[in-house]
Amino acid sequence: MSKLVIVGTVAFDAIETPFGKTDKILGGAATFIGLAASQFNVDASVVSIVGGDFPQEYLDLLSNKNIDVSGIEIVKEGKTFYWKGKYHNDMNSRDTLVTELNVLEHFNPVVPSEYRDAEVVMLGNLHPMVQMSVLDQMENKPKLVILDTMNFWMDCALEDLHKVIKRIDVITINDEEARQLTGEYSLVVAAKKIHEMGPKYVVIKKGEHGALLFHDDHVFYAPALPLKEVFDPTGAGDTFAGGFAGYIAKTGDVSFENMKNAVIYGSALASFCVEKFGTQRMEDLSSREVHERLQQFKSLTQFDIELT
Amino acid sequence: MSKLVIVGTVAFDAIETPFGKTDKILGGAATFIGLAASQFNVDASVVSIVGGDFPQEYLDLLSNKNIDVSGIEIVKEGKTFYWKGKYHNDMNSRDTLVTELNVLEHFNPVVPSEYRDAEVVMLGNLHPMVQMSVLDQMENKPKLVILDTMNFWMDCALEDLHKVIKRIDVITINDEEARQLTGEYSLVVAAKKIHEMGPKYVVIKKGEHGALLFHDDHVFYAPALPLKEVFDPTGAGDTFAGGFAGYIAKTGDVSFENMKNAVIYGSALASFCVEKFGTQRMEDLSSREVHERLQQFKSLTQFDIELT
Repeated sequence: MSKLVIVGTVAFDAIETPFGKTDKILGGAATFIGLAASQFNVDASVVSIVGGDFPQEYLDLLSNKNIDVSGIEIVKEGKTFYWKGKYHNDMNSRDTLVTELNVLEHFNPVVPSEYRDAEVVMLGNLHPMVQMSVLDQMENKPKLVILDTMNFWMDCALEDLHKVIKRIDVITINDEEARQLTGEYSLVVAAKKIHEMGPKYVVIKKGEHGALLFHDDHVFYAPALPLKEVFDPTGAGDTFAGGFAGYIAKTGDVSFENMKNAVIYGSALASFCVEKFGTQRMEDLSSREVHERLQQFKSLTQFDIELT
Repeated sequence: MSKLVIVGTVAFDAIETPFGKTDKILGGAATFIGLAASQFNVDASVVSIVGGDFPQEYLDLLSNKNIDVSGIEIVKEGKTFYWKGKYHNDMNSRDTLVTELNVLEHFNPVVPSEYRDAEVVMLGNLHPMVQMSVLDQMENKPKLVILDTMNFWMDCALEDLHKVIKRIDVITINDEEARQLTGEYSLVVAAKKIHEMGPKYVVIKKGEHGALLFHDDHVFYAPALPLKEVFDPTGAGDTFAGGFAGYIAKTGDVSFENMKNAVIYGSALASFCVEKFGTQRMEDLSSREVHERLQQFKSLTQFDIELT
């Protein structure tokens, strides 16, 4: 069992989908990552920042999942990061209606001293220099550093992004972002170019089409579970990353073979996340349900062609 | 080893992709299906029609693969069906530049008498009434009838399409077509509605995103092999169907478990098809190469999470 440090937003989301809408509810990358990782009972610490408006019950929700919240700075006179978005009918695209950075504008993450020797670090989507500052605080080189990012940073902080990408082991990125980062349409070629930027492992997320894990000339494919309906895709990518990081932290095994399992766990957990608004489904997810979903992933993908 | 009847076009294609262009070359759904099925050394007969302009060497090419061509009618004074298309840069969409039906306009398929007891029938993309006429010629109800179709028939012959769909066991259809046929965006719901139209098995092809096999509440997913480049997607869907049909004919096993293997074979063969223009790659494909590609599919999809 390894320690896991998670840095990312803890936020308010307001979401509109074809199925309904919410007022401000609990959201943020680190929240989804933490909830997913908590399925593995790992010793995880969330490093983030919120305002005085952030309800204690949300912090308690994380604590009750055994997530250390001492690294979440509370700025009493500040307001919590707020995002409001509306999904289109196909659920694959969305419009951002409101982004209020608030306290996030001056976020200097501080990793709690007892987590500076963590073996696994999950850098959630944030400004690359903020991600870098977390890496700089680690006492030893962690066994595995995973980074999630998005096109926004490619547009406005590409140089910094390249600096942090050079120092990490696994990048998770969606297909369009992989194409933007490399200028390559083929995901196989894009992954190769990203390898050359630093990360030995490249995970390309394709939403409803699953995720690809690349390592040298090896590739593994984790499908998304075909669903009757996607209720709310918010946080699915972070849940995937959290499942991946949590499984690696739990097993302490950073081999490619074990990472295959990690992306399957990530996909399985993400398939729950989209069933309800926000974090709702992840909050009360039982290990029995996860177990059953993994069985479904086996039926979905495993076949029996004998090759001699 | 079962007999396999394949009905579909045998045609000339002219193709333009970002990588180059061809003059009229060998094409047609039944051609690609036949070449894929020939990998299984099954006793297959192609039922089709060509004009006097169709080279004998193309017929010989099929015969040399042990495909019976006696069901290919040659209309001496007629011209062979001709399609010309141009792929866009992303290779996922294409424009049809020329469609000359020629002899196909008056195609009355005749199944050779020694194939009217075939256990497996593959109805390639054609007018639904032409597909129906092949079914009507079969002496017994075949063990498995597979149908491929496209949006064109939904637009202009929907009623006939419904009639033939009612009589088949497996439909292969792409994602957009499944949505058009059912009016449902979710592929899970679309597959359920297609089940209710007749077919017990529904295969939804998602191009570079693989294929889904549905049966009652079961679902299986065959990925497409991630490729550095797709040289020419023409015939990939037919090759997939031909691999599926050929494997079923070879094994004679129509269980869902065996169909999982069939869609993996279909995906593996389709991954070769797109490597060169037209039928080129399929013409000289060795069983050793297929074997190696199946190994790749295993590495790509098989994982080892122990569930108790």
